[in-house]
Amino acid sequence: MAIILGDNQYGKAESRLVRFYRDGPRHEIRDVNVTTALRGPFDAAYLHGDQSAVLPTDTQKNTAFAFAKSKGVEAVETFGLELARHFVHDVEPVTGARIEIEQYDWQRAVVDGAEHDHTWLRSGQEVRTAAVTVDDSGEHVVGGLKDLVLLKSTGSEFAGFLTDEFTTLPETHDRVMATALDAKWRFGTTDVDWDATYAQVKRLMVREFATLQSLALQQTLWHMGTAVLEAVPSIVEVRLKAPNKHHFAYDLSPFGLENPGEVFWAADRPYGLIEATVVRDDAPPAHDAWRASAGLA
Amino acid sequence: MAIILGDNQYGKAESRLVRFYRDGPRHEIRDVNVTTALRGPFDAAYLHGDQSAVLPTDTQKNTAFAFAKSKGVEAVETFGLELARHFVHDVEPVTGARIEIEQYDWQRAVVDGAEHDHTWLRSGQEVRTAAVTVDDSGEHVVGGLKDLVLLKSTGSEFAGFLTDEFTTLPETHDRVMATALDAKWRFGTTDVDWDATYAQVKRLMVREFATLQSLALQQTLWHMGTAVLEAVPSIVEVRLKAPNKHHFAYDLSPFGLENPGEVFWAADRPYGLIEATVVRDDAPPAHDAWRASAGLA
Amino acid sequence: MAIILGDNQYGKAESRLVRFYRDGPRHEIRDVNVTTALRGPFDAAYLHGDQSAVLPTDTQKNTAFAFAKSKGVEAVETFGLELARHFVHDVEPVTGARIEIEQYDWQRAVVDGAEHDHTWLRSGQEVRTAAVTVDDSGEHVVGGLKDLVLLKSTGSEFAGFLTDEFTTLPETHDRVMATALDAKWRFGTTDVDWDATYAQVKRLMVREFATLQSLALQQTLWHMGTAVLEAVPSIVEVRLKAPNKHHFAYDLSPFGLENPGEVFWAADRPYGLIEATVVRDDAPPAHDAWRASAGLA
Amino acid sequence: MAIILGDNQYGKAESRLVRFYRDGPRHEIRDVNVTTALRGPFDAAYLHGDQSAVLPTDTQKNTAFAFAKSKGVEAVETFGLELARHFVHDVEPVTGARIEIEQYDWQRAVVDGAEHDHTWLRSGQEVRTAAVTVDDSGEHVVGGLKDLVLLKSTGSEFAGFLTDEFTTLPETHDRVMATALDAKWRFGTTDVDWDATYAQVKRLMVREFATLQSLALQQTLWHMGTAVLEAVPSIVEVRLKAPNKHHFAYDLSPFGLENPGEVFWAADRPYGLIEATVVRDDAPPAHDAWRASAGLA
Repeated sequence: MAIILGDNQYGKAESRLVRFYRDGPRHEIRDVNVTTALRGPFDAAYLHGDQSAVLPTDTQKNTAFAFAKSKGVEAVETFGLELARHFVHDVEPVTGARIEIEQYDWQRAVVDGAEHDHTWLRSGQEVRTAAVTVDDSGEHVVGGLKDLVLLKSTGSEFAGFLTDEFTTLPETHDRVMATALDAKWRFGTTDVDWDATYAQVKRLMVREFATLQSLALQQTLWHMGTAVLEAVPSIVEVRLKAPNKHHFAYDLSPFGLENPGEVFWAADRPYGLIEATVVRDDAPPAHDAWRASAGLA
Repeated sequence: MAIILGDNQYGKAESRLVRFYRDGPRHEIRDVNVTTALRGPFDAAYLHGDQSAVLPTDTQKNTAFAFAKSKGVEAVETFGLELARHFVHDVEPVTGARIEIEQYDWQRAVVDGAEHDHTWLRSGQEVRTAAVTVDDSGEHVVGGLKDLVLLKSTGSEFAGFLTDEFTTLPETHDRVMATALDAKWRFGTTDVDWDATYAQVKRLMVREFATLQSLALQQTLWHMGTAVLEAVPSIVEVRLKAPNKHHFAYDLSPFGLENPGEVFWAADRPYGLIEATVVRDDAPPAHDAWRASAGLA
Repeated sequence: MAIILGDNQYGKAESRLVRFYRDGPRHEIRDVNVTTALRGPFDAAYLHGDQSAVLPTDTQKNTAFAFAKSKGVEAVETFGLELARHFVHDVEPVTGARIEIEQYDWQRAVVDGAEHDHTWLRSGQEVRTAAVTVDDSGEHVVGGLKDLVLLKSTGSEFAGFLTDEFTTLPETHDRVMATALDAKWRFGTTDVDWDATYAQVKRLMVREFATLQSLALQQTLWHMGTAVLEAVPSIVEVRLKAPNKHHFAYDLSPFGLENPGEVFWAADRPYGLIEATVVRDDAPPAHDAWRASAGLA
Repeated sequence: MAIILGDNQYGKAESRLVRFYRDGPRHEIRDVNVTTALRGPFDAAYLHGDQSAVLPTDTQKNTAFAFAKSKGVEAVETFGLELARHFVHDVEPVTGARIEIEQYDWQRAVVDGAEHDHTWLRSGQEVRTAAVTVDDSGEHVVGGLKDLVLLKSTGSEFAGFLTDEFTTLPETHDRVMATALDAKWRFGTTDVDWDATYAQVKRLMVREFATLQSLALQQTLWHMGTAVLEAVPSIVEVRLKAPNKHHFAYDLSPFGLENPGEVFWAADRPYGLIEATVVRDDAPPAHDAWRASAGLA
């Protein structure tokens, strides 16, 4: 029996980078959080402390900031591809690169009814995500979003479920359904209009959440995933992770009050958690990184 | 020398309460976090463990949920006043009540171009706050907001400052200015259109942040506060707490690149912190609770 | 009616500073988070953007790091006094300084049964705090701790309380009591062995929490406060803020199981919150900053 | 092309469960956070909203609390196995179960020099973790810890690294090394003294961190992993994830002060991140859940 080094990677996590475009009076902003990781023949660093093949994480950070100037930050998927290709193609020992980016949304301040040229408010709760992996198997791009908080005050049921000796839950045909959606979608190509696709996917998911008379959060996720795959040919697989943020109708009967779906306690923990994948049956095989990052612990 | 009980209060913190209005197909949502605290002759509970004058915090929570049904949740200032008056007027030993409420904002989901009747997305980062104190000195209402994240990419300077032997900071006449504003405003009356006033105050603060050519964050706060006091007669004092969320221009010169205000590192800590009060010179005296909660540690 | 500038201060928050002593093979560590704030005639900065009296927050940060070298970081109260005195005495326009420090605790790594010379593990949850205010009224020192998480599995009751129409809580004579204590103590002098006093106060508070048959969290706080004032002459006032971290006995009766105080659900929110002051009746008057920071919103 | 349901699971996350043993005057505490997830033929719930095979997440929660009473909570790995076996063996449609548990550590309060019978303080920062997967491939147990915060003030170098046009980092032969270790170890058997093994693994990792003259964090991780595999036959693979919590020597030269490794700024973000696996070459194949949860995004 021998002990060996298995999978490994190293990089710089969470470089908070803000890129402005100031070419005219109307400025633009891109606000991102960049994490880079490199793979390759780095065994000597582990086994003997030999750094001769190790590009410092500090250098990776510098590269991200330099590229923000020289290449610009347009779609986060594009920026991730630029960085990943550079590390794999231009830095001799590197054989694989993984770039993860979060993007935060800003809306222009409205002053006296007009959008302001150079002032913004942070908007929304959700974070746009991208994960790009480049190695000798090709270029793999995953788009996504997280913390998209959705709630509907009716149009959700939960009944007819399996029971055993530990079941006390009553059935309901009208409940509040709320979640903080975490979704990732795997592209089958890099020939994509990334920003338009992001907007489209988000719009479809919100539509399905709102319009389906939901018999279970599972059913809602299935409808979200199929709606995306039916509408967006470039996406081959969708992974959804949805906490069931429980809203419990408060018992007002001790106080002589009815509560027909009006007053709820929004609980923190515990919460239900539903995780599912919706995939084309002819999807190309996924990179190892897909399963590792997209989930199903 | 004797040891005595000084100021004290007790209550239930952070009841996460969601109130829906479902009278027609178009539902409405109010999402709040309610904290109640009572004051009065509770010495026996401290000194001897005698609870006979102590209304349980669990009862305070029940009251908030029951009132959400029986009184409804309109403006948070109004809901706070309802609760505070009840505790002081209806519960025999209670002489003072302090109600603090946070409100979270939701926007209707847009489906196929139309606002949906019963589905929402959480919107914005900022939280609306209200603090109501009722006791024998009267009724005191404080409105507010926190975590209103604002950023401008130009129109901010910092120069001509005092220097000493520990000063290394260079002057700048064009920098990024960003903050997560925490503001509280004290009303001189309870005869107020609370929701309209909240919208107006937020709009004024955003306008001043955007339009002032700022020579210091201090100057921006002063303009925010005076704009509010000039426009809103019912407000007598404004307290502002603004972290200076530093954006440092990344040094790209080692890589042969210029950086004319385009690429920044958004730092977490440390950060500048500016706290200021803007007040009418004829403002009525504030309740003790104002200073205690509004700050200046 | 005129609009005027009221209370204000500005400074640098949360400089995360680590100071090592490496004079021999056995190193020492001090890990602190330093916040400085200055007060004085800074009106021109607010009203006209004139910075000529404003020492930059960047300079305040530099000063803290420089003092960590030149003065060292012994007790955090001492370090706070050094900084506050410097700003008030050495920087011309400054009339008042407020220094707040958090200290994080480390314990030496144990290797083969022996304490290691230069390796540590972060220990404990609680954070030691100090707040120093120096101005023309004198030197004011407040010690403290926060997030000291305590739990007892018996020895706590809650019964005989006031009831009204919103009361549903049953009485109990054996419950779990848990809190995350936040305590601040005001010193009447600066002639104190700070580190020894901190250890003594913490020890006394833990003792009272453990040994009192508690009829209410209020009673426990009173005993904590009086124990400190009786034992430590240099302390004149204690403020305690204690969330009642509810542990609800889980109802196992549907499953044919008894639950005699064995299985609990630890809830997050809402929680009870008890705040109290215990003070000597001959205590000198407190600085404004005491009430503002120590609470009772 | 058809769209199909891929991997999926559902369950109840983060049931905060506290179990006391009160058989004599000296009580014992187990404080855990339990997450359960079930796998099986649940397609109908997704595709048609048919819940007839779905055991509610509420029932899963009830089961965890009931088992805490009936089975007790000894080692978290054992508790996880009990729950997973129950769901797979006793609930008809379930074919796989995944139980994840976090455990929080408490130390007895010390009162007048003696350990108290029923009062504790939360201790340490690190969290013990366990992940148990049971399905038709067998029983798979992963132990772990996270947020073990370690720091050494010397004995760490970083030099001789690869450079490119984006490299500005200077070499160093004496730096601070700090991390918040996240480690998972895969067992090849369930015949293990879980608690003793946990203590042993933690002790070995701390020892390697402390005693190795580290040429890179990578080398430290390798030594940690090999030390565990050499000493603990029941463990077949170790995954380590270690942020490099940067401590930057503060530049005191503008103030005429030297800084020989004494005064540091502890930065938050960005940070280096090293991830590595150390494995026996004859380790049995891992369950899919291993890679998915243990990482390498």
